[in-house]
Amino acid sequence: MLFIVDVRDVNGKILIVNITKTLYWRNNELYLLDQRLLPAREEYLRQSNIKQVWLSINTLVVRGAPAIGVAAAYGSLTGLHEHFALSKEDFRHKYISQAEYLMTSRPTAVNLSNALNIMITLCSKSIANSAEQLYLELEARAVALHGEDIEMNRLIGLYGADLIFDGCRVLTHCNAGAMASTGIGTALAPIYTAYKNGVKLAVYADETRPLLQGARITSWELMKTGVDVTLVCDNMAADLMSRKMVDMVIVGCDRVAINGDTANKIGTHTLAVTARHFGIPLYIAAPSSTIDPNTRSGSNIIIEQRSWEEVTCFGGCSTAPYGIKVYNPSFDVTPNTLITGFITERGIIGPPYDFSRGFSDE
Amino acid sequence: MLFIVDVRDVNGKILIVNITKTLYWRNNELYLLDQRLLPAREEYLRQSNIKQVWLSINTLVVRGAPAIGVAAAYGSLTGLHEHFALSKEDFRHKYISQAEYLMTSRPTAVNLSNALNIMITLCSKSIANSAEQLYLELEARAVALHGEDIEMNRLIGLYGADLIFDGCRVLTHCNAGAMASTGIGTALAPIYTAYKNGVKLAVYADETRPLLQGARITSWELMKTGVDVTLVCDNMAADLMSRKMVDMVIVGCDRVAINGDTANKIGTHTLAVTARHFGIPLYIAAPSSTIDPNTRSGSNIIIEQRSWEEVTCFGGCSTAPYGIKVYNPSFDVTPNTLITGFITERGIIGPPYDFSRGFSDE
Repeated sequence: MLFIVDVRDVNGKILIVNITKTLYWRNNELYLLDQRLLPAREEYLRQSNIKQVWLSINTLVVRGAPAIGVAAAYGSLTGLHEHFALSKEDFRHKYISQAEYLMTSRPTAVNLSNALNIMITLCSKSIANSAEQLYLELEARAVALHGEDIEMNRLIGLYGADLIFDGCRVLTHCNAGAMASTGIGTALAPIYTAYKNGVKLAVYADETRPLLQGARITSWELMKTGVDVTLVCDNMAADLMSRKMVDMVIVGCDRVAINGDTANKIGTHTLAVTARHFGIPLYIAAPSSTIDPNTRSGSNIIIEQRSWEEVTCFGGCSTAPYGIKVYNPSFDVTPNTLITGFITERGIIGPPYDFSRGFSDE
Repeated sequence: MLFIVDVRDVNGKILIVNITKTLYWRNNELYLLDQRLLPAREEYLRQSNIKQVWLSINTLVVRGAPAIGVAAAYGSLTGLHEHFALSKEDFRHKYISQAEYLMTSRPTAVNLSNALNIMITLCSKSIANSAEQLYLELEARAVALHGEDIEMNRLIGLYGADLIFDGCRVLTHCNAGAMASTGIGTALAPIYTAYKNGVKLAVYADETRPLLQGARITSWELMKTGVDVTLVCDNMAADLMSRKMVDMVIVGCDRVAINGDTANKIGTHTLAVTARHFGIPLYIAAPSSTIDPNTRSGSNIIIEQRSWEEVTCFGGCSTAPYGIKVYNPSFDVTPNTLITGFITERGIIGPPYDFSRGFSDE
């Protein structure tokens, strides 16, 4: 089922038109766009029970930290509308056990546990009179979390759009767009906002080896919304920049240390070095939820090594000799010195970076 | 047919063991390894007539400038052993027309025309008494060209090996190895030579998007010969270098300008910028045949744009939305300022570069 919609803010104002939504909640069921099939097919998987949701998050049907958080909030409710006959206390226990189970679907995604902890706290403190009333309160909170994600995206877009001048050519890496969130994304939010404001711009999308999120997802969502996008291989950055074809780099992030060192999709560090060599600014689009107050600097971030098969295959076709040794870190760490600024929901923050209090200016 | 051999120098001394040859000449026929099938299959295509050879060079059955030159020298002889009944003059005309036809198979490959011009000149000046004697002279010249290519590779290996210390980790891009030549390659020659000398070393092979010559060919040939090789994505350079996992970069080249600016496979420039950022030396392995005396600097080199399908598909698998705009230059130009030195058949040449007289020290 294809579900193309306008993305709107909480007041119903259109933010971008004609984008496929990552997810929606309807009649007590969660629908997730199966991102593993992009761009070949656009199909939604209906999630009617908690086991389905667990598997969908675990197997990357839905990806991107903000999108995972919202999916988890809704997903934790699946199936519970059939249990309104339970006492309020029994219903409460049932909900909490279901939410705690879902939290194990991807233990490293902070947004997942953040969203579920908010839901569990509400459930524990609720003074609702019945199972049904409690369910409706929880459902309203999930809808609110969804709205907050859209709003955070909107604000990053609003502040970031100030950077994008008429004729601007932006290079981005991986996918930090609508498909990584429930709104207009993080790194792509300034692009969508400027585009909607009539600013003439063009985007280069790194294909982003090995999982090709740029080729499969970023180029696809930008193309759908009408933004001028050109797909390039990751290794073309110096060629593009030396020919003065790029004015700015904007990427998302997976974790920001207190000192501003930033873990993001593998390739970001090489891109940041290249941008610095050519004097091109590099911005990290970062909601405050990606700051990790337990990480002082990048050297404290443990980088996940992923399967060799991601590198030795391309779109399902084998491309390297069987048994070849592979180095395949999922992320790299860009040092704060190579980052021109962070585009946040509170505005643009430049160096020196001290995020010990988040993006707060207190 | 699988044809694994030791690569030997002109005196029969083993240079590297257990490598698949790019080509061989036997009983008046040329056998070309079909590199389009690597690494999935190792198959030789027997070339019995000039039309087959033309098509094989044109469709990249054989690739790499040195290998193409030798293939053309042998290939120009195919079928002619059936015409020894011709007069010497008629045979001469037949050979020259066949060689000139072959020259059109890949008009931009300098080694192709260089090799064929040497053969045509010999054919024109020969004082052979018969068609058969002329054929044997030409065959001997093709064998000599083959030997010269092996020798040039050997010398680049010899000089380059001096750079490689015990425990050295070398990063390379694309394929400038045995599969791009008829010997031990150019960029990989120092690696093979040091390895044969018992130097402990390790190689990181960039997969080299879009055509994946690093994944398909470099990692395959290094693995076959027993060299410790690890496959990485092109975008991992900064991660590897920031973790001090790379000591040196060695790559090949497609054209060197008089001032040392170097055109090589797309991605070399980004790699050179990254290596410089981390203070890691970058060497270009370059036979003198790749100097273009008509090119003063890199800005004079016209870069071929290749098909969008190379970026949006691999092995028949589509990975990007249909109709996406693609930027796909086949090469980039690394400025001379980022090049630590050239490894040539005359030794290692450092800056400042002036190749107006080739690699000559006159």
